[in-house]
Amino acid sequence: MALKLHGLPMSTCTTRVMICLHEKTLDFELIPVDLFSQGNKQPPFLAKNPFGQVPVLEDGELTLFESRAINEYLAEKFKESGHDLLRSENLNESAIVKVWREVESHQYDPVISPIVYQHFVAPLQGKAPDQKIIDENLDKLAKVLDIYEAKLSETKYLAGDFYTLPDLHHLPYTFYFMKTPWASLINDRAHVKAWWDDISSRPAFEKVAQGMTFGEK
Amino acid sequence: MALKLHGLPMSTCTTRVMICLHEKTLDFELIPVDLFSQGNKQPPFLAKNPFGQVPVLEDGELTLFESRAINEYLAEKFKESGHDLLRSENLNESAIVKVWREVESHQYDPVISPIVYQHFVAPLQGKAPDQKIIDENLDKLAKVLDIYEAKLSETKYLAGDFYTLPDLHHLPYTFYFMKTPWASLINDRAHVKAWWDDISSRPAFEKVAQGMTFGEK
Repeated sequence: MALKLHGLPMSTCTTRVMICLHEKTLDFELIPVDLFSQGNKQPPFLAKNPFGQVPVLEDGELTLFESRAINEYLAEKFKESGHDLLRSENLNESAIVKVWREVESHQYDPVISPIVYQHFVAPLQGKAPDQKIIDENLDKLAKVLDIYEAKLSETKYLAGDFYTLPDLHHLPYTFYFMKTPWASLINDRAHVKAWWDDISSRPAFEKVAQGMTFGEK
Repeated sequence: MALKLHGLPMSTCTTRVMICLHEKTLDFELIPVDLFSQGNKQPPFLAKNPFGQVPVLEDGELTLFESRAINEYLAEKFKESGHDLLRSENLNESAIVKVWREVESHQYDPVISPIVYQHFVAPLQGKAPDQKIIDENLDKLAKVLDIYEAKLSETKYLAGDFYTLPDLHHLPYTFYFMKTPWASLINDRAHVKAWWDDISSRPAFEKVAQGMTFGEK
């Protein structure tokens, strides 16, 4: 039975899962959710995810939400297929993968997502971007990226010399961030820039990036 | 070699790991980090965690940070010891555990932590609590708890009829939240209340709760 992914290619969390599906060379059916008419807040969708957020993955009888949880499930279940994203054969390596998975969740995502939101999403909703929020988070992001720069001068990827889920999880927001006026925060840090060039040129991401747009032509 | 945990019993993230260590019946040495004199921002500590946050776990040569990653490492490595916190034998159960682990990280923690911070920590730092931040997050927390109430009317714990890491991860912040004037958000929801009474009375938590205080007598 084919995997069913409910979401939209412009949603950062949906693309996070799409990239993983491509890395694992898995077939899936993308089922669009009409966020503009609040299809995600209607009972049929809420029965799949009570928080009313995309994406949702259906694998037979199993229904999952939260993009990072879905990716870890896919990486575990389809371990033998495509790229190994967890390093689960080695307890110490897989522990470091978990550490950087949490770094993305608790250090990176909370500061980059408000910048992307204010710059791209607020105008779509008829609101002016809040520059104070952007500036505060740019300062925090710079500090996080200083730590990344030091780490990436020691290892090619965040958790070691191997590409894993923590790297992958950075792709959607960083892709949009690179289209803002503040991309120099990445470009001016040599090791972060090399890491970004590497992970954003992987074929699994390139397949997904084509559809990632906030209404651009 | 004994596990070494660097942190403080008043830190929510340190206690998150201490509870897990007790659930897994593991001996450990707690090494205090002097947060008040910024010991966590000095080079010896930054070499262990470049983000300068407690806790850090040392297991022989392996150094880990981010409390939720540490807990998952402990639950995997010491699978046979104490309570099973991951349900890793069953792929579908363990997938649901991952989903609710992410719910705690992305839906619960971001709304409960500012309330606890404003109510307890801001005054310690000589600042008045920001009631607007508290009120906004109380509204969001109520919505999250409505979803928990529905889920916990179907299963005894968040991921099913078994206590796992996602439940455990809620303990530190909820413990402090229950000492605020807004504890009725938990107490007025019958299934959430029963869940809270259950998880907060586990011996592994009771051992840790004794030391959890923001300078109270």
